[in-house]
Amino acid sequence: MPLPAPDSSALQKIPTTATEQWFDYPVHAYPHHTDYGGVVWHGTYLTWMEEARVAYLHTLGIQFADLVVMGCDLPVVELSLRYHRPVRMGDNAIIKTRMNRMDGVRLVWEYQILSLDGKTLHVSAQVTLVAVDREKGKIMRQLPDPIKDAFIRLTR
Amino acid sequence: MPLPAPDSSALQKIPTTATEQWFDYPVHAYPHHTDYGGVVWHGTYLTWMEEARVAYLHTLGIQFADLVVMGCDLPVVELSLRYHRPVRMGDNAIIKTRMNRMDGVRLVWEYQILSLDGKTLHVSAQVTLVAVDREKGKIMRQLPDPIKDAFIRLTR
Amino acid sequence: MPLPAPDSSALQKIPTTATEQWFDYPVHAYPHHTDYGGVVWHGTYLTWMEEARVAYLHTLGIQFADLVVMGCDLPVVELSLRYHRPVRMGDNAIIKTRMNRMDGVRLVWEYQILSLDGKTLHVSAQVTLVAVDREKGKIMRQLPDPIKDAFIRLTR
Amino acid sequence: MPLPAPDSSALQKIPTTATEQWFDYPVHAYPHHTDYGGVVWHGTYLTWMEEARVAYLHTLGIQFADLVVMGCDLPVVELSLRYHRPVRMGDNAIIKTRMNRMDGVRLVWEYQILSLDGKTLHVSAQVTLVAVDREKGKIMRQLPDPIKDAFIRLTR
Repeated sequence: MPLPAPDSSALQKIPTTATEQWFDYPVHAYPHHTDYGGVVWHGTYLTWMEEARVAYLHTLGIQFADLVVMGCDLPVVELSLRYHRPVRMGDNAIIKTRMNRMDGVRLVWEYQILSLDGKTLHVSAQVTLVAVDREKGKIMRQLPDPIKDAFIRLTR
Repeated sequence: MPLPAPDSSALQKIPTTATEQWFDYPVHAYPHHTDYGGVVWHGTYLTWMEEARVAYLHTLGIQFADLVVMGCDLPVVELSLRYHRPVRMGDNAIIKTRMNRMDGVRLVWEYQILSLDGKTLHVSAQVTLVAVDREKGKIMRQLPDPIKDAFIRLTR
Repeated sequence: MPLPAPDSSALQKIPTTATEQWFDYPVHAYPHHTDYGGVVWHGTYLTWMEEARVAYLHTLGIQFADLVVMGCDLPVVELSLRYHRPVRMGDNAIIKTRMNRMDGVRLVWEYQILSLDGKTLHVSAQVTLVAVDREKGKIMRQLPDPIKDAFIRLTR
Repeated sequence: MPLPAPDSSALQKIPTTATEQWFDYPVHAYPHHTDYGGVVWHGTYLTWMEEARVAYLHTLGIQFADLVVMGCDLPVVELSLRYHRPVRMGDNAIIKTRMNRMDGVRLVWEYQILSLDGKTLHVSAQVTLVAVDREKGKIMRQLPDPIKDAFIRLTR
């Protein structure tokens, strides 16, 4: 697994570096992310994973908000996480994500949440999205072209 | 799989006791409400205040979700809070709220967040909502009838 | 300022009905639970699942906050969810949970999130907790007695 | 009021630019920040304001997490916000903040949340913190030296 560049700083969100199709999204654990234990609350990681996904799509030329306006939503249909070591308040971390596979209108994303030096694995996860026609409220028969094209480019 | 009893109601979360126009909404401080200090994070109180508001409207016969579907939103336009003593994880508290006044299409709500025994004042707050026409994206000229009627009934 | 009635209890939020070891925790989808789609944001379900867990433990005589003060934490180590149909703003739902099994110091909880009439399955999920000694920062060798006893009682 | 530099990008969090003592913290409105209206939920702004505060302290050489470890907390004791125009999903915005005054152990912060082009004022706010001795659970008699020194430097 590729390590983040040593000088990559969590204090700059949404970097454009993507190594071997992994996209790096640095985060910082602020007070509101924590719980009574002084560590990041287990649900907070979902906000970071969503941010990383939307930021990644942005680098591929896909504006998630525009997609929604155009009538396509990408709700989460499956989610699994393993929590290895918590991120503590004040820590920086890297949300690494990549699109693992495209299965019809289902998009499977893989995640690894690492310390800044890449030595500590905090969380590993997988998220599946599905393309939904917002007006009909139904799963689309095929992915919208911009998404399909972006994914084909990635997997080449 | 067992079905929930037919009379089991999520609205049992919403007590109907209102004393001298104060509406009581009890809450419990769960782990996700807390921060590193072991107390409720200062922004969490806004979720409880919103819940109390919607629950209060419910007892007045106003379903907030229906109001939105009908094209009326009630966004917060002003908010002020004073934090006196934090609610700790595992504590119960009462969100007391009342509509203080109706100023055209502006609704001013007053809050007191108290311990269960009423002896500790945790937070005092004021929230102002305004009625907005969702389609036009503009402030309404007058409150929708169900809201106006409910408020007139209350202030009698 | 009126005091809350002496018997008013925040725990009225926590129903005591448990059918065949399922514990029912009713919730209402308030505005802050939703996202741009008008439905409950996918991460919000984790807050409800945590609340149901803590409420269930409460009915078994275990106060989660006391457990933490006594030095035992129960962090989530694994989590998986399947989202079947979203809960919409203004909907009521039932968080059904049961302890599926106790595997040493690992507790596996099963979830089903249903509509109030029990006809719609919104989410199914599984959450694994592990008992951690807060001072040592290490997984405990065995569960604290109150938890072990409660689980043994349940599975009889 | 100073505008953010024209090439400042919300896609880089925690910039170091501070103009006339205003500190700029760019944010992006992700799905989890929104509510049913497709705009940022009113409580979400508090998370951004907290992040901007902690990031600002960071540029002054104060690590908030270290402060907490050393026994000093800075809880919010007063908060007031005026919501002018909502930030929509997919929008970038700038959280502008400055320490307005130091009143003993009370720190008063001023906020303006602006669109990226500086033309739209979304929110204006004021937040008061107080220094608390975590062990004693009491308000400190004086601010810890690193904070006092940083503020004196700022106000020169």
